[in-house]
Amino acid sequence: MTDFGLADPFVGIMHGVVLCRCREARVVDLCHGIEPQSVLEARFWLERSYEWFPPGTIHVAVVDPGVGTDRRALVVEASGHRFVAPDNGLLEGIVTGDDSARVFAVDPARLRLQVTSRTFHGRDVFAPTAAELASGRASAEDVGPVVASMATLDAPVARDVEGGVEGRVVTIDRFGNLITNVEAAQAARLEAPVVVVGNHELPLVGTYGEASPGSLLALVNSFGTVEIAERNGNAGKTLGIGRGATLLVREARRQRT
Amino acid sequence: MTDFGLADPFVGIMHGVVLCRCREARVVDLCHGIEPQSVLEARFWLERSYEWFPPGTIHVAVVDPGVGTDRRALVVEASGHRFVAPDNGLLEGIVTGDDSARVFAVDPARLRLQVTSRTFHGRDVFAPTAAELASGRASAEDVGPVVASMATLDAPVARDVEGGVEGRVVTIDRFGNLITNVEAAQAARLEAPVVVVGNHELPLVGTYGEASPGSLLALVNSFGTVEIAERNGNAGKTLGIGRGATLLVREARRQRT
Amino acid sequence: MTDFGLADPFVGIMHGVVLCRCREARVVDLCHGIEPQSVLEARFWLERSYEWFPPGTIHVAVVDPGVGTDRRALVVEASGHRFVAPDNGLLEGIVTGDDSARVFAVDPARLRLQVTSRTFHGRDVFAPTAAELASGRASAEDVGPVVASMATLDAPVARDVEGGVEGRVVTIDRFGNLITNVEAAQAARLEAPVVVVGNHELPLVGTYGEASPGSLLALVNSFGTVEIAERNGNAGKTLGIGRGATLLVREARRQRT
Repeated sequence: MTDFGLADPFVGIMHGVVLCRCREARVVDLCHGIEPQSVLEARFWLERSYEWFPPGTIHVAVVDPGVGTDRRALVVEASGHRFVAPDNGLLEGIVTGDDSARVFAVDPARLRLQVTSRTFHGRDVFAPTAAELASGRASAEDVGPVVASMATLDAPVARDVEGGVEGRVVTIDRFGNLITNVEAAQAARLEAPVVVVGNHELPLVGTYGEASPGSLLALVNSFGTVEIAERNGNAGKTLGIGRGATLLVREARRQRT
Repeated sequence: MTDFGLADPFVGIMHGVVLCRCREARVVDLCHGIEPQSVLEARFWLERSYEWFPPGTIHVAVVDPGVGTDRRALVVEASGHRFVAPDNGLLEGIVTGDDSARVFAVDPARLRLQVTSRTFHGRDVFAPTAAELASGRASAEDVGPVVASMATLDAPVARDVEGGVEGRVVTIDRFGNLITNVEAAQAARLEAPVVVVGNHELPLVGTYGEASPGSLLALVNSFGTVEIAERNGNAGKTLGIGRGATLLVREARRQRT
Repeated sequence: MTDFGLADPFVGIMHGVVLCRCREARVVDLCHGIEPQSVLEARFWLERSYEWFPPGTIHVAVVDPGVGTDRRALVVEASGHRFVAPDNGLLEGIVTGDDSARVFAVDPARLRLQVTSRTFHGRDVFAPTAAELASGRASAEDVGPVVASMATLDAPVARDVEGGVEGRVVTIDRFGNLITNVEAAQAARLEAPVVVVGNHELPLVGTYGEASPGSLLALVNSFGTVEIAERNGNAGKTLGIGRGATLLVREARRQRT
């Protein structure tokens, strides 16, 4: 996972670097369209994607505004997977999600990495570190010292407010579906929840096809968070909102009788 | 093949799901830029792409506006390949193209699939079904009951009209080439065929390089249909047209003598 | 590497064609977002990417405005790698970079290729040629006759001018970083080099993080050329320039004392 996009050869070169060190590695592109430098979006997707891969998978995530500075490169063992990423909060949720997580800082000298650039550590640090792990030549503790405290990220969390739950749009997919940080469990605590966004009040339905064509709707998506969509349309465009927009999930107003 | 795009992790997760069930599968991305929810475009490309893959290939195509409703998931055996897709017409041409095609409806229980979402059956149904087939644990008839009649799609077909053949632009590629549904054989029945689009009349040439730079042209493309292009340019932008636009292929007007 | 993009199935079909002829091939997508028909950009990236792949890798590069004309298809052996591309200058730098490079023209009959189209030689010529090489059934000299002289490309080279080095923007990445053809060594010959672009004069720093957020900077990138960037921003948008724009790298003006 990177924010490099696929138009340029950056991702392809990372594949090449892995194959140079571990010819038998299976390499899968999770996604490379993370909003440039959005550690927040990368973190959201990584936390919700990794468990769909086989246990033991090595997940390399490079969204790295601090490349070439003294920020560390980390290897994390957690939840039966391994993760390689810069120390900028990207792996914070992965680590807090597993009490027995172990965190190591990559020492390039120990892995004999040639760090020839200060601008492309995907190529010079993260890919070769992953390949050393994949090949079995290095275990997580071989890459460098144990890390006591990691960089943290001020990730917005949906929170209870008077009358409901206030959340944010974390990302928007190709269909214009607005994916939020309101967890299914938060919505489930409300009776007959509705999603308020702008001046719209949207019912929570089960799937896109339950709304009439062209109408806005809300649902719990396949990643367990509330999502705002438009049946056969693009909710982001229709509403004119995107990443960072706020929404309120609250109980439907009772009709007067 | 999907309409998910590659910016988000949806496609990557499908790869992960396949590998969880069939570590030795070779997975190729055919394309993920199908116009959102355009079953028509997906069908066009799938029918013209599958035969370039080895016999026995399992083709997974997810363009699925009805995800989570009661539309079925299908497995088709036809022309020496297997296909996994929603029952929305996507596989109609594949089935009509082979008299001995066999069609089955996926019963998630038979394959022990955990269908945890109503919005991402690429992950929960289509990818794991393909992996069960790829692993050899399931054959096509193992996935569920034989299907007697499939959903159909009102796909526009180029048709003979007074003085020629009327067709439509089905898709437009990255170069702005307008790819139509007029078959080479339909054009070949005409003497000295020309393509009329807007107020342009374009000769059929053999390849892009036969036109002068910047000029519009028509040709029979590598998929056997008529295509409108601009030498070293973008025909879609120049003509201001795209998917669904109509064109006429007719015989060149004789010059008066 | 192609300029086909990934939205349509062209690249996926090339994968299928390779697998038909060489099931065990490992196929990596270097990149497919080369500016349409920009042999110049393809050449720049190929020359700076190939060495990050294992020796013996077969690099297929298809940016091919002359497809279907009499331009030849080439196989080049150079620097321990093999390259398959049209004869349009794409491989010029690869060949001039190795005195012992060997160049062959593909004779489709020798490889028993079915060249069924005049518009998609990625599928009909380049992919199957690469697969024949990958399978070991053909060596480079088996594909066709030795080529004495190749097509050349008028590629702009950064050159010494009064007071510095004048170069050009060759490509722009997803972050808006402007990647130029001024080599690190050219900049290194200057004392306290600065980059002049438009009415901006930018210091050469070591990495993005050394500039203050939102400010423009220049650096030597991971491919050894001068690059213009904006810290946490998009230099291309801020400056309003792109491919082909000129820049001057010169010594900083001394302050009067």
